[in-house]
Amino acid sequence: MTAPSKTIRSDIAWSTSDEIVVRGKSLPNEILGHLNLGDMAFLQLTGRVPTAPESAVFNALLITLVEHGITPSAIAARMTYAGAPESLQAAVAAGLCGLGTVFVGSMEGASRMLYDALPQDALPQDAGEADLDAIARDLVQRYRAEKRILPGFGHPIHKPIDPRTPRLFAIAEENGMAGRYVTLIQKIHAEAETAAGKPLTLNATGALGALCCEFGFPWKIVRGFGVMARAIGLVGHILEESERPMALNIWHQIEDEASRHARPA
Amino acid sequence: MTAPSKTIRSDIAWSTSDEIVVRGKSLPNEILGHLNLGDMAFLQLTGRVPTAPESAVFNALLITLVEHGITPSAIAARMTYAGAPESLQAAVAAGLCGLGTVFVGSMEGASRMLYDALPQDALPQDAGEADLDAIARDLVQRYRAEKRILPGFGHPIHKPIDPRTPRLFAIAEENGMAGRYVTLIQKIHAEAETAAGKPLTLNATGALGALCCEFGFPWKIVRGFGVMARAIGLVGHILEESERPMALNIWHQIEDEASRHARPA
Amino acid sequence: MTAPSKTIRSDIAWSTSDEIVVRGKSLPNEILGHLNLGDMAFLQLTGRVPTAPESAVFNALLITLVEHGITPSAIAARMTYAGAPESLQAAVAAGLCGLGTVFVGSMEGASRMLYDALPQDALPQDAGEADLDAIARDLVQRYRAEKRILPGFGHPIHKPIDPRTPRLFAIAEENGMAGRYVTLIQKIHAEAETAAGKPLTLNATGALGALCCEFGFPWKIVRGFGVMARAIGLVGHILEESERPMALNIWHQIEDEASRHARPA
Amino acid sequence: MTAPSKTIRSDIAWSTSDEIVVRGKSLPNEILGHLNLGDMAFLQLTGRVPTAPESAVFNALLITLVEHGITPSAIAARMTYAGAPESLQAAVAAGLCGLGTVFVGSMEGASRMLYDALPQDALPQDAGEADLDAIARDLVQRYRAEKRILPGFGHPIHKPIDPRTPRLFAIAEENGMAGRYVTLIQKIHAEAETAAGKPLTLNATGALGALCCEFGFPWKIVRGFGVMARAIGLVGHILEESERPMALNIWHQIEDEASRHARPA
Repeated sequence: MTAPSKTIRSDIAWSTSDEIVVRGKSLPNEILGHLNLGDMAFLQLTGRVPTAPESAVFNALLITLVEHGITPSAIAARMTYAGAPESLQAAVAAGLCGLGTVFVGSMEGASRMLYDALPQDALPQDAGEADLDAIARDLVQRYRAEKRILPGFGHPIHKPIDPRTPRLFAIAEENGMAGRYVTLIQKIHAEAETAAGKPLTLNATGALGALCCEFGFPWKIVRGFGVMARAIGLVGHILEESERPMALNIWHQIEDEASRHARPA
Repeated sequence: MTAPSKTIRSDIAWSTSDEIVVRGKSLPNEILGHLNLGDMAFLQLTGRVPTAPESAVFNALLITLVEHGITPSAIAARMTYAGAPESLQAAVAAGLCGLGTVFVGSMEGASRMLYDALPQDALPQDAGEADLDAIARDLVQRYRAEKRILPGFGHPIHKPIDPRTPRLFAIAEENGMAGRYVTLIQKIHAEAETAAGKPLTLNATGALGALCCEFGFPWKIVRGFGVMARAIGLVGHILEESERPMALNIWHQIEDEASRHARPA
Repeated sequence: MTAPSKTIRSDIAWSTSDEIVVRGKSLPNEILGHLNLGDMAFLQLTGRVPTAPESAVFNALLITLVEHGITPSAIAARMTYAGAPESLQAAVAAGLCGLGTVFVGSMEGASRMLYDALPQDALPQDAGEADLDAIARDLVQRYRAEKRILPGFGHPIHKPIDPRTPRLFAIAEENGMAGRYVTLIQKIHAEAETAAGKPLTLNATGALGALCCEFGFPWKIVRGFGVMARAIGLVGHILEESERPMALNIWHQIEDEASRHARPA
Repeated sequence: MTAPSKTIRSDIAWSTSDEIVVRGKSLPNEILGHLNLGDMAFLQLTGRVPTAPESAVFNALLITLVEHGITPSAIAARMTYAGAPESLQAAVAAGLCGLGTVFVGSMEGASRMLYDALPQDALPQDAGEADLDAIARDLVQRYRAEKRILPGFGHPIHKPIDPRTPRLFAIAEENGMAGRYVTLIQKIHAEAETAAGKPLTLNATGALGALCCEFGFPWKIVRGFGVMARAIGLVGHILEESERPMALNIWHQIEDEASRHARPA
């Protein structure tokens, strides 16, 4: 438990009768009409407006996380909406509750792994290829020796390439943001494939975890990008559920299957 | 309870080993690097990419809802994070659960009121001023006669003008989206002030509710815009809470105050 | 929005270094070892220990609501646990979020209907059969005329009798708590069947709603009994899910079915 | 991620038109009127009805966790209710979301520590005092050497004795359930005090963690007892909030304090 501060204070926003200020900027005059939603998320988290390259990469990062089809999260949200259609917000909340270690956790894990291997102030920003090669080799050997899973690698469907990964790296490259963390995870990828003797997918959460390191976001907040993006996606699922419901069908189908063994013949 | 469909089917997204399609568009090739996060939300909900004017107005609409300071929602999220810092997603979920009828509900209520008074196909798009005047007058008289509150009006702090309202209308105007629903709520505003004999704030939720009608969004999904935007804002609060915590201080202060009367002197 | 009180004050519990008091009773000395969990719930809500008959009926009321099989609520909880097994509490929370108007709402609705038809102070406690007959007849006629559904009636499986209903009424009878609200809902049942000309199930939520009125609980809190009981049931589902998981199987099965139409052949 | 089973199957409950079976027992005929709510929770989790001594201890265990005053969890629930009073279930859910590692986690941690030190099948049930002395001494030395906190020890208010702890142990003793795990945590307590050279509170979560081990519950489900019990407590808080609200007062007080530094003088 972090020691509490002495005071109750927030620096995010304040307002008076005729002004609303978020992160030091006038919401009506300096934010509305000037930023897009991804930029606003960046401002909310960092306290500053992103540069154009940062805006391009950060918007792509968040967009990647919006929609993943009929996931456990989407099913939970739809089930909840079926029982409480008057509480759309609770359906989204239920869907978000499952964004934990199993799914979104690998993005967080990739960022943490990269920061652990290469702390932000550990090497000069122009660390040479040789340095990064050594770090990647050591890391892969250590994970293999400890039989640990590399976060951000592997995918049940997208084999051998997750189509989001090269696209995210290309966007980072175009915007001058494919720095040493992107290079490092690519070297880890190569080392891991060599060590395994077969192709291994560097998945989107691995690529996104590396981008989060390029921005310098603390790994503890990385999961939050998945949470905010998926909130958007889940509202889309609830809208579809309200127009073409599937939740009650799922319920009846699963309940029947789950209790079939117990019912009298 | 809506009658369930015969099938379990979603048209939002699907994927194969080398492709991910969201709303009919290739995520890697047609979405990433092409859209901003607000556009992606629009695509997720409507199935199409917004036009440039739609993008400007829709991004402004969502951004307005991201951050409102230390609200009950932010306090709930921070309290939850203090108890379960390992579950950032659950803290955001807890904060979203309170976005119900009392706060976010007025935006939904404004949209519903406007659609009830002026159904989308009720008048030609170029309905004359006289038509809208009559609708506004009737509506205000009816609400007053029934002692109902006009959703989207009044504000405890922003008096007599909510600074977001004129800005949102200006952005709509610049983008050719200040149509008959914006005009109608402005006329309702004027009628209500005349009837009350004093200034009355047309607040941001009223303005946003009118913009939702301009887009033609079903009123039942309007609350969802508040939910998705606030999810972004709450991640910001949790990041600040992780760096400068206030939750435990709030707890101790409130617990002490709440039980002071009961403790032995 | 209820007007806020002037003070921040709670009368539920307080503690000192060597004492913990809940609802005026010493937790260590007067509660632990003296009450069962249902009695504790009664004490927490009413501020007093139930009598033996009240304890019998109230425990039965809550127990009825603990477990309903593989419901949407249980599916949502299991889906959430699959994604965040480290946050058992968030899985239960997700499952509870759907206990809204569609499912648990009918118990609340039954209580509200009975209170509306027969306010607590409207008739002497020994109101005659004739009075209750008239109230039941009027109510059924009015609901039919307004084409409203009678809350607490009908069931997709338990036809013509919900086996919980006669048992709950028998327990109430044995404990002297089958008063005028139980009689009234039974008369409504008879009137509704006569009017419909066919059998109609008086379901468990109808019986429970009547029992809540016998206790005099405000209808606004009736849903809370479903929430607290189901929390117990959901922990059971999560324990089973941890030992014999079904969530990922459900996911794969539903996702495949939902997107089959979209995948290339 | 646990490997999914091949089938979708639950053994908790099933029903036919005239029967409802929970954990192999007829809900109407064998459960209602026969069990109290704590017994029902035991049945739901273990698949069997508790013996009378088990019932006494298990009910006490759960009751201890129902109510802890104006906690962060209660504040989150009240804040949520203030925004969405129509969704009582979402307010309870929000309050539960924070029952994570910081608060409820110590009960789970105590169980886990005890099982790690003394696996269920490691010693004969009548393991001698000398065996348990050695285990306790080793454990305290190891935790001190590794500078780890002993879960279940220490309390900010209840010093030097948490009044729940001796009462819970007495109830276990009276019911023949104060076995080797209770003895072990008491020996750990004594060793820890000797090592520290000062009194150290064995708090309620430590005592409850030991009782969970006496029952043989897997440590992964221990947190669930806190979750189910607190759901009851939170409904009580929401009832009080509906009758004498404090949430909006807390909001205004905290918002004012948090943003005071930023407002123009």
